Amino acid sequence: MNTQLIEKVYEEVRRKIASGEIKANDVEVAVKEIAKCENESKVKNEVIEVKEVKKEGKFMQAPGLTEFVGTGIGDTIGLVIANIDSALHEAMGIDKKFHSIGIIGARTGAGPQIMAADEAVKATNTEIVSIELPRDTKGGAGHGCLIIFGAEDVSDARRAVEVTLKELPRTFGDVYGNDAGHLEMQYSARASLAIEKAFGAPVGKAFGLVIGAPAAIGVMMADTAVKTANVEIVAYSSPSKGTSHSNEVILAITGDSGAVRQAVIAGREVGKKLLNALGDEPTSTTEPYI
Amino acid sequence: MNTQLIEKVYEEVRRKIASGEIKANDVEVAVKEIAKCENESKVKNEVIEVKEVKKEGKFMQAPGLTEFVGTGIGDTIGLVIANIDSALHEAMGIDKKFHSIGIIGARTGAGPQIMAADEAVKATNTEIVSIELPRDTKGGAGHGCLIIFGAEDVSDARRAVEVTLKELPRTFGDVYGNDAGHLEMQYSARASLAIEKAFGAPVGKAFGLVIGAPAAIGVMMADTAVKTANVEIVAYSSPSKGTSHSNEVILAITGDSGAVRQAVIAGREVGKKLLNALGDEPTSTTEPYI
Amino acid sequence: MNTQLIEKVYEEVRRKIASGEIKANDVEVAVKEIAKCENESKVKNEVIEVKEVKKEGKFMQAPGLTEFVGTGIGDTIGLVIANIDSALHEAMGIDKKFHSIGIIGARTGAGPQIMAADEAVKATNTEIVSIELPRDTKGGAGHGCLIIFGAEDVSDARRAVEVTLKELPRTFGDVYGNDAGHLEMQYSARASLAIEKAFGAPVGKAFGLVIGAPAAIGVMMADTAVKTANVEIVAYSSPSKGTSHSNEVILAITGDSGAVRQAVIAGREVGKKLLNALGDEPTSTTEPYI
Repeated sequence: MNTQLIEKVYEEVRRKIASGEIKANDVEVAVKEIAKCENESKVKNEVIEVKEVKKEGKFMQAPGLTEFVGTGIGDTIGLVIANIDSALHEAMGIDKKFHSIGIIGARTGAGPQIMAADEAVKATNTEIVSIELPRDTKGGAGHGCLIIFGAEDVSDARRAVEVTLKELPRTFGDVYGNDAGHLEMQYSARASLAIEKAFGAPVGKAFGLVIGAPAAIGVMMADTAVKTANVEIVAYSSPSKGTSHSNEVILAITGDSGAVRQAVIAGREVGKKLLNALGDEPTSTTEPYI
Repeated sequence: MNTQLIEKVYEEVRRKIASGEIKANDVEVAVKEIAKCENESKVKNEVIEVKEVKKEGKFMQAPGLTEFVGTGIGDTIGLVIANIDSALHEAMGIDKKFHSIGIIGARTGAGPQIMAADEAVKATNTEIVSIELPRDTKGGAGHGCLIIFGAEDVSDARRAVEVTLKELPRTFGDVYGNDAGHLEMQYSARASLAIEKAFGAPVGKAFGLVIGAPAAIGVMMADTAVKTANVEIVAYSSPSKGTSHSNEVILAITGDSGAVRQAVIAGREVGKKLLNALGDEPTSTTEPYI
Repeated sequence: MNTQLIEKVYEEVRRKIASGEIKANDVEVAVKEIAKCENESKVKNEVIEVKEVKKEGKFMQAPGLTEFVGTGIGDTIGLVIANIDSALHEAMGIDKKFHSIGIIGARTGAGPQIMAADEAVKATNTEIVSIELPRDTKGGAGHGCLIIFGAEDVSDARRAVEVTLKELPRTFGDVYGNDAGHLEMQYSARASLAIEKAFGAPVGKAFGLVIGAPAAIGVMMADTAVKTANVEIVAYSSPSKGTSHSNEVILAITGDSGAVRQAVIAGREVGKKLLNALGDEPTSTTEPYI
C-alpha cells in the first residue's frame, strides 16, 4: 500500500461520507480485522526466516538441558548424549565402542551440515556413525539431515557438535534460493570422513558439490561443471537414485583443487541464471565462500 | 495495524491533502487492492487450521455420496465401499473374503489415525488390510496415512470408519507442533491389530509411541524414554529406516502399562523443551490425554 | 477489506482525533508497515500462482543461455544440451547413441508433463530416456518430475522440449486443487512412448489416468472409474507402491477410447465432490479438456 493508494482510499471514504453511506457502528470489528491483516504481514518465506534467525538468533533459547548444545540455520539443532541407553544403542546400530554420541539434525539442508561436520571430524576425536537424509526443507525441493557423531568421551562429542554449528554460517554461504527452487555449492580443499561417508569421495583430496533444484537445473549445472575443468565425477544423484526422492540433481566431484573450485563456480553461475528464469533472483542464504 | 498506526496514516493523508499531493482517480483499484489484502489475511498456519476444523467443523459438508462417512483433524477423510470392483480388489491386493472396505486417509498424521483405528478394530468386526504412510503433513516433517479396513459386511466397515473419526480428537491430543517441527506421543493400555500391523507390537500389551521431528529431537526423546522406565523397544525408525523419508525418529515401546506411560511422558517433556529451542512453545493440537 | 470496513476505520480515526488521542510522529514507520502489508498480499496459494504464470508469463525471462528453451506451469523448465559431457553421459546411464538431450523438470506435476512429452515423442525424432518422479509439489501431496529426451540431433531434442511446453496448458486442464489436496485426470486416444515408459500402458491404445490426493479419495475415484465402463487396469499405485511416497492413489487404465474417457470422467466427478468435503470447491488449473 503506497502513499498514492492511501490517498485513493481517503478520497473514497470522503465521498462515502458526503453521500451519507457511512455507518459508524462495529468499529471494533473493523480495527480487529485490520490488526489481523497486519499480523499476516509477518508471513515470510523460508529463506528470509533463515536469515533472521542467523542475524538475530532470536530463537536461541537454551532449554535447560545438559544435552542441548545449540541451534543454527535451517532449523538445525545440536545435541549430545553422554551415555546412550544400551538397548537404544543396539536399535540404532551404533558401534559398541562409542558410549557418547553427538547429534546434528535439521529441517533444511544436508550439504551444509555435512560439510560442517567434515570440519568437525578433522578437529576432534570423533567418527561419523551415520548420515541420514529425510525428504524435507519444509515444503522445499531438498533434504533435511540427521548426522550422528560417535565418541568414546562426551567432551569430544560435544566439541564436534559445537564445531559443526559454528561452521554452518559459512557452509550455507553458497546456498541460493527463490520460490521455485534452490542451488547449493560446496567446496573443500581436503575432504575428510563426513564427506567420504556421505558421498564416497576420497579422503584428503579436493571435493566439490553442485546441486540444483528443480532437478532439471541440476542436470545443466552438472554438465557445465564437468565441461569447465578436468574433474572426476564421484557421484551423480537424481530423484530416483541416491536421493530420498528430492527434486534435485546432486553432482559430487573430486580432482585438483583449482579445477574442482573452477567447476563448482561454473555450475553455480549457470544455475543462478536458470533458477532466475523461474522466479526472483536467487540470493545467498549468508555470504558466498567459494 | 493497531489504532496508533491508523492514526499515523490519517496524519500522513491529511498532510498530503494540505500540500496538494492527492490524486482522486483510480479509487476502485485502491479498494480492490485493499480487499485483496484482507483476503490474504485468511492465510493461516497448518496447526491453526487443524484446530479450526476441529472446533467449527466448517468444512464438514456431506458431498451427497453414500460412500462418504465424514472428515476429521489433519485433512482426514473417512469413506466406505460396499462392494469393491473385483479387478481393483485384485490390484489393491485385498483378501478375497472382504467385499467391503473402510478407508481412512489424511494429509497430516499417521499415529493418531492408527491409534484411532486400533480402537475401531477392537469395537467392530473388521480387520486392518493395509496401512500406508505417504511422506506428507503438507510441508511438515512427517507422514500422512492411508488405512484400509476389510469387512464382510458394509455396516461393519462403516462402523470402523465412524469409530476412527470419533477417536481422532483424543489421539491428536499429544501431538504438539510449532514452525520448526512436531512431537507425537501415543499410549494404549492394550494394543490391538492396527498397532500390531503398523509397528509389530504385541497384541494385548501396553504400547507407547514417542516421535520427534526434526529427527535429532526424536533421538533424545527416545533415549530419555527408555532410560526412564523398564520398557522394551519394539521398533526404532529414522529417516532412512522404517519411515517414508520423514524427518522423524519414531520409538515404539511395550511393557508394563505404568512403565510405558511413564516413559512416554518423560519423552514428551524433553521433546517439548528441545522443540521450543527451535521456535515457539509447542502446543497440543487438541487436549493432551496421556 | 470492503468499503464498509474502510468507513468504520475512518470513523474510528475521526473519533480519536476528536478526543485528542492522535500522535502525528512516526508517520514514515506507519507507511512502511502498510507497504509491507501490501507486499504480503502478494502471497498466493500455488494454484493461483500457476494460473498467473500461465496468463501473464511474467517469470518468462530468457536467461541468455542457448540451452534454455522455456518455462511453463508448475515451475516447469525446459532445457537442451547439444553434446552432453561423456563422463556425465555415463553417470546418467544414457544410451551412447544420444549425443543430445532435452530436459523437462518441474516442481509440480508429473502427469501433465508426461502426457505433454507423449505428444512430443509422437511429433519428433526423439526417445524418452528416463522419467523420474521426485516427491514434491512444494508441500502438496504429489510429485514433480524430471523427464529426459534422447536425440541424435540437438534440433530434435529442442523441438521435443518445445512441444512439451506448448502442450502443458492443455494437460494441466484436468488438474484440480484446493488446500486439502488435488485431483488429476488425463486422457489420450492413442498412447505413445512416454505413457508406456511411465505407466507400462500399451502403445497405440486409448489411455486414461485418474489420480486423487489424499490417497483415500483416489481409492474411491479408482473404484468409480472401473465400475463405470469396461476398462482394463494398467497400474494401481499408492503411497507405498509405485509412487515416491506421495499421498496419492494413481489409477492407469486402457481399453476402448469411449470407455476410457467415460471412466475418467466418472472418477473426476466423484473426486471433485470428495475433495470439496475437505475444503473449498476444487477448480481447474487451466481449462478442462476431457
